[in-house]
Amino acid sequence: MPLPQQLTAENIEKQLQSLLPHLKTLSSDDDRQHYGKDWTNFYPPAPSVIVFPRSTDDVKKIVLWANEQEIALVPSGGRTGLSGGACATDHEIVVSFDAMNRIHSFDPIEQTCVCEAGVITQTLQEFAQEKDFYYPVDFASVGSSQIGGNLGTNAGGIKVIRYGMTRDWVLGLTVVTGKGDVLHINQGLIKNATGYDLKNLFIGSEGTLGFIVEATIKLAKPPRDLVVMVLGLSELVSIYPVLKTFRGGLDLTAFEFFSDKAMKHVLKDENLSAPFDSPASFYAVIEFDQQNAQELETAISLFESCVENDWVIDGVISQSQEQYQKLWALRENISESIAPYKPYKNDIAVTISHVKAFLDEVDALVNQQYPEWEVIWFGHIGDGNLHLNILKPENLSIEDFTQRCGDVSQQIFKVVQKYRGSISAEHGVGLLKKDYLSYSRSPEEIEYMRAIKKVFDPKGILNPGKIFD
Amino acid sequence: MPLPQQLTAENIEKQLQSLLPHLKTLSSDDDRQHYGKDWTNFYPPAPSVIVFPRSTDDVKKIVLWANEQEIALVPSGGRTGLSGGACATDHEIVVSFDAMNRIHSFDPIEQTCVCEAGVITQTLQEFAQEKDFYYPVDFASVGSSQIGGNLGTNAGGIKVIRYGMTRDWVLGLTVVTGKGDVLHINQGLIKNATGYDLKNLFIGSEGTLGFIVEATIKLAKPPRDLVVMVLGLSELVSIYPVLKTFRGGLDLTAFEFFSDKAMKHVLKDENLSAPFDSPASFYAVIEFDQQNAQELETAISLFESCVENDWVIDGVISQSQEQYQKLWALRENISESIAPYKPYKNDIAVTISHVKAFLDEVDALVNQQYPEWEVIWFGHIGDGNLHLNILKPENLSIEDFTQRCGDVSQQIFKVVQKYRGSISAEHGVGLLKKDYLSYSRSPEEIEYMRAIKKVFDPKGILNPGKIFD
Repeated sequence: MPLPQQLTAENIEKQLQSLLPHLKTLSSDDDRQHYGKDWTNFYPPAPSVIVFPRSTDDVKKIVLWANEQEIALVPSGGRTGLSGGACATDHEIVVSFDAMNRIHSFDPIEQTCVCEAGVITQTLQEFAQEKDFYYPVDFASVGSSQIGGNLGTNAGGIKVIRYGMTRDWVLGLTVVTGKGDVLHINQGLIKNATGYDLKNLFIGSEGTLGFIVEATIKLAKPPRDLVVMVLGLSELVSIYPVLKTFRGGLDLTAFEFFSDKAMKHVLKDENLSAPFDSPASFYAVIEFDQQNAQELETAISLFESCVENDWVIDGVISQSQEQYQKLWALRENISESIAPYKPYKNDIAVTISHVKAFLDEVDALVNQQYPEWEVIWFGHIGDGNLHLNILKPENLSIEDFTQRCGDVSQQIFKVVQKYRGSISAEHGVGLLKKDYLSYSRSPEEIEYMRAIKKVFDPKGILNPGKIFD
Repeated sequence: MPLPQQLTAENIEKQLQSLLPHLKTLSSDDDRQHYGKDWTNFYPPAPSVIVFPRSTDDVKKIVLWANEQEIALVPSGGRTGLSGGACATDHEIVVSFDAMNRIHSFDPIEQTCVCEAGVITQTLQEFAQEKDFYYPVDFASVGSSQIGGNLGTNAGGIKVIRYGMTRDWVLGLTVVTGKGDVLHINQGLIKNATGYDLKNLFIGSEGTLGFIVEATIKLAKPPRDLVVMVLGLSELVSIYPVLKTFRGGLDLTAFEFFSDKAMKHVLKDENLSAPFDSPASFYAVIEFDQQNAQELETAISLFESCVENDWVIDGVISQSQEQYQKLWALRENISESIAPYKPYKNDIAVTISHVKAFLDEVDALVNQQYPEWEVIWFGHIGDGNLHLNILKPENLSIEDFTQRCGDVSQQIFKVVQKYRGSISAEHGVGLLKKDYLSYSRSPEEIEYMRAIKKVFDPKGILNPGKIFD
């Protein structure tokens, strides 16, 4: 949707400020660069103006005005997305939620609070902690990402095996639809069987149906004493009996994995050291919440049983908060340690029982066709979610690399489709994955999605070109 | 949607059997009476024919044929619904899922199985138990209700405080839409951020968008040793500090309440006795899963603290499986004990912190305007869900009673709206609540719901007249 000819950036700012005199706007080249892109980095930013609403009513007025003008709006949170869902590449107006960052209405009996879309995820985590509660959605970018963006992509992360996804912590939403209607959906109720579930329809819709401006968030009881184990596996296939063994005996809060290649990159940080000397091809990171001494004994006995069965070569368990942090860093620092290699990231999921066959097949495919490429696997194997990172060879330009990775993706997604998996487990579709949507959703599903888009955003002004064209 | 003139019941059976030679059909007066209604009992049944598909493909063919003929289809499970969602009152074809009752594809690592829509809820519970797992959605009618119906209304029940609603246990759905498309949604994945969440849209849509024919169900770890306490409260307002106290110290699996009037009806069963002698105006039923001896001590100390604060008058804790059953029966047998009084049931929810004010206001309203009526309160107070049962006075005809209860409902729903609650927490809307939908959903939400209905069922053949006209 190109910008109407008569609407220069200056005109837009003037018109919006006459509508909303207090509205902060930005339009310098630097600001447009900054607010026009997310962490994907593949799409040159080119928004016209950035606006900073301060209330639901501001957002409603902006959306109504954009409907009249038929001008596209792109929602903008922490812009930590990895699929280009918040990229503005074609003169769109960026609607930043930076100025809507209040947490209010905390209720200790309900165990809820109300968050505006611009609240930083970590701020919500800290708010919960201050109140002796716990917001359990956790992932690498919580220090920058915003709740609105988490809701838009239904963010997951490292605690999904125990606590579920972002949508599992939402009891209500305030949404401004593409038509400019303000919907107060579900209003904090736990049980409400009165017609269609619009709440979950907006969650994960990447701002294409409506802008989520506020959410009622449920808080959990805090864990008592988190303990982490890092285990070395002889071969990947051992991950299943290990998962089954540990899940049978303990309430796990995380079950992650990474390859020895990932470990090598992480260990370049001199503050970290290998968890044990025995070489392993894969590592499992297992976390549980220790309620009492008995559970520690259980964990050790489960570990011993895994060693007896030759599934596990060696292992270590955290004995202090410091060791807990250092062991987790082996998994959590992977992304950062490979960032200098400009990795092409795939975020794929299959059901757990398909992981081994799937991973073997994809590994063989990449090794065969791109033997010079380094492939780093890690991820949330307890819920079937694998992050496949292809590192850019030094001698390849970023353009050629991106182009060739696109070709590889298509082949990988064919394998995903064969195993009826997801081409995007927790990163959303955005711009990066939309050409591949049909590998995870049927043509009929996509047609229904398009029709739903028309219902809520008939003029197609909300985040156009994201998820599908 | 009246039956097309040329389509007699006989014609329908002939046409469908030429399409699907193996299709079982019924059309006797008795069968039409039986399959044309649910537990609501307010709507005279008048379907034309009952059909029993055996596969997704059967359902698809029936829906495509019904589209051509423009004839209405009503989905039918265990027909234990309390809002008329499965009533067929106007020559519709009832599509019974009785013959689609297989459970297959159990996977102990995924902790999932696949259920056809006609599986009885209790059968799934028993299946899970045999496999050392647990299906935690539990309520009074599990012996008759079917999974398809549970999904259609997003059934809740007594374990919601710990385990959530039916939707929280679904990882995938196979649905035949109103247009006859077969959608395999999500296919068992835990994480899948590829566009709009159609799974949750179909769950709770009461068969008006599509017929759910199969679901991938997640199973939980079984509880270890469930312990139940019954506490007598001095006054209703004490329920909050008691809930807060117990939820702070233990992982509760249920937090129910009922009034002394409810207790009086239950105690007419001579196999049951009062839990203690002290008179109380309200009772709380608190269940937790005892992991070790420490938790029992915690429970007793929490109880003592509640007594010291004068919130609780007396209490008892189960010391054997037999006592556990008998204490639970005090809550679970309420519905049965008041059934002879043909109660008019309201199933309402507000946020927990509004329960006291809400309940007082509704109680005053009913007492003032209908002082001769007996009102029985019980419900899932831990999640704000209250069942208000008005018993029919002997001297009032069922017609007059139903009529007057409708008038009361409207006034009650105004109070629900004031507290931004739900007019149907877990029973759905069906025929009984559709006139009151606007007390819980805004006009804009209802318009969007109608538009979504048109997307999936443009000819309006799926369960017409349910939720809205």
